[in-house]
Amino acid sequence: VRDERPIHYRIFGMAKELEREGKPVIHMEFGDPYVEVDPEIVHSMCMSALSGHTHYSQPAGLDEFRERLAEHVNKRFSTSFSPSNVVVTPGSKIAGYLAIRALARPGEKIALVSPIWGVYYALLREAGVEAVDIRTSFESGWVPDEEAVHEAVERGVKAIIVNNPNNPTSVVLSREVVRAVAEIAGERGVYVIADEVYLDFPRGGFYSFLETGYENVVALYSFSKSYAMTGFRLGYAVADERVISEMTRLLQLYFTNVPEFIQHAGMRALEMPWVVERVTRTMWGRTDFLASELRRLGFEFVYPQGAFYVFAKVPSPWRSGAEFCEALIREKYVSPAPGEGFGGYSGFVRFSATAGIEVLREAVERIRSFLEEHGG
Amino acid sequence: VRDERPIHYRIFGMAKELEREGKPVIHMEFGDPYVEVDPEIVHSMCMSALSGHTHYSQPAGLDEFRERLAEHVNKRFSTSFSPSNVVVTPGSKIAGYLAIRALARPGEKIALVSPIWGVYYALLREAGVEAVDIRTSFESGWVPDEEAVHEAVERGVKAIIVNNPNNPTSVVLSREVVRAVAEIAGERGVYVIADEVYLDFPRGGFYSFLETGYENVVALYSFSKSYAMTGFRLGYAVADERVISEMTRLLQLYFTNVPEFIQHAGMRALEMPWVVERVTRTMWGRTDFLASELRRLGFEFVYPQGAFYVFAKVPSPWRSGAEFCEALIREKYVSPAPGEGFGGYSGFVRFSATAGIEVLREAVERIRSFLEEHGG
Repeated sequence: VRDERPIHYRIFGMAKELEREGKPVIHMEFGDPYVEVDPEIVHSMCMSALSGHTHYSQPAGLDEFRERLAEHVNKRFSTSFSPSNVVVTPGSKIAGYLAIRALARPGEKIALVSPIWGVYYALLREAGVEAVDIRTSFESGWVPDEEAVHEAVERGVKAIIVNNPNNPTSVVLSREVVRAVAEIAGERGVYVIADEVYLDFPRGGFYSFLETGYENVVALYSFSKSYAMTGFRLGYAVADERVISEMTRLLQLYFTNVPEFIQHAGMRALEMPWVVERVTRTMWGRTDFLASELRRLGFEFVYPQGAFYVFAKVPSPWRSGAEFCEALIREKYVSPAPGEGFGGYSGFVRFSATAGIEVLREAVERIRSFLEEHGG
Repeated sequence: VRDERPIHYRIFGMAKELEREGKPVIHMEFGDPYVEVDPEIVHSMCMSALSGHTHYSQPAGLDEFRERLAEHVNKRFSTSFSPSNVVVTPGSKIAGYLAIRALARPGEKIALVSPIWGVYYALLREAGVEAVDIRTSFESGWVPDEEAVHEAVERGVKAIIVNNPNNPTSVVLSREVVRAVAEIAGERGVYVIADEVYLDFPRGGFYSFLETGYENVVALYSFSKSYAMTGFRLGYAVADERVISEMTRLLQLYFTNVPEFIQHAGMRALEMPWVVERVTRTMWGRTDFLASELRRLGFEFVYPQGAFYVFAKVPSPWRSGAEFCEALIREKYVSPAPGEGFGGYSGFVRFSATAGIEVLREAVERIRSFLEEHGG
């Protein structure tokens, strides 16, 4: 019931099919910021490859890169991690999978605070781990209820997956909530898998699970969003040495290591905080534009605070996210993601503000006429 | 019993430790050809990344690349695969894992013809699949016995993994043996997972499992060896659409896709057959040098025909590959791989001829004095 791949797939498939037929599809279902990567980052990659960094390498990542990543995290969160607390991964999805594998055996349980990126349900299933859903609601601003977290912990879960800032809701958890979740997890030593890949997007503050001082945290980060480097497949995890070492063992078994030249690209990126500024400011502009336009059209949602998604209630007369998306794609070639794909939130739909303003403007126009034609 | 990671690890760990202490370690335990990648290939990658191929992409690989790969295979093996029979993977190890996952469920069985790269035992265990070992012997030239293959098939295995040309023995199976294995597998419709990443190294002919016409073949290939592109992590698999589609589903779940710019590097490589010529000729020279020198030192082995490894009997007085390797590393800083790591062949040791001739010459000198000091 939790896994909604079929609906996701059918709807993504529809958009692709229409695109192949030459229809002017606007994709609002992906999380890939349409911002070009800084050429300096590409140059660093090229110089690295040209100078011979094209061989097998250390499974956990280059020592120098892990050191810089540890410093980066320590500076930001006032922590004291060493390179041995870091593993470099080909994207953060696999980092999530490796964390799941490191923390739970088949048949054991892991909780997740939903709505959450549907991939997590699929990763848990692949690992043979049972998903325990901690549901939240629009009415409570998508903030998890402490009692519900407590219940999950009492059910013997090995870890709790929390995506903060959240995809799809763009909600940022407060310091108090983050600390409360860590504290409840701490009652039984349960790990928190903190997917914090949107850490640079909150406009207000951001409080990381790493800042709680709770020891059993596996934090996941990525270069995809902050540096618009989705296509490089570069992420990393920060955790205690035991977990990092188990994640590294699996990583080496599957891939050997992340290409050295991609790690050098990441190293250069870390030296350019202005790139993050540029990407986040661009995405704020797009998100504000989309959110305010959708609000004018009558959509209800918690205003996006920490990511570039608008997670809105499905308007009448549609009865589900899937139904709404299917009709919108078929009639107007605009393709958002149904809430079904984020843990069965069928009353919602996620719009990504990843495209440029001109494309978003066109998308909003089409949605407007779509609503009008259906008596909205 | 089959998985010998601990021994492998302890011995690799020793070499690393001595290297950190500043000792002049010669690595003969890895399969990374020390040949520089063609700069043209790197340039293609850079141009691709600079022109914006830095976003999420098709999970199975770029249509154009899959088309070229299908053509490449079809031209070489007179087959008629289409792009939908190809999936591009980050290395061939993960391709092997995805094939295993696509063909067998936890608790089911897969056979492997050994000796074989130890990673396969670990991948099977990760997938929860039971390994059924089809053992071969030095005396029979490391060629599998048909009766043994038949017995494995009768035990209800879902697939047979055959690495041909073989790592660690460098043996190339004849057309007759390949056809016989395919035929026996065909009796029960069992899949053959044909790891053919060394396909370009045989000096004589090479007959692929794809040439048998047997439908249930998953063939694994890589740019690592033929193009000296180990650090790019680029491989691909060829199989029927059902298997490719399941492998793609898992690949997308784990990694999204192989970076487009790395696929463009691979596309350029395919246009440069002279690179393969250069790499293979270089590696033949090194392999011939090492093999003839080791033979002069009295080592016994099947002469390498299709890869750059010498899989030799452990000389007396050592009683196992692990014991031999440990002593050689400790006393002479030369680090081969013990036969234990290839399916428990403890009477053997694998020397890689991956380094340049000068380094190999030094390695041989050290091995000579090592044998002399131990009364050889």
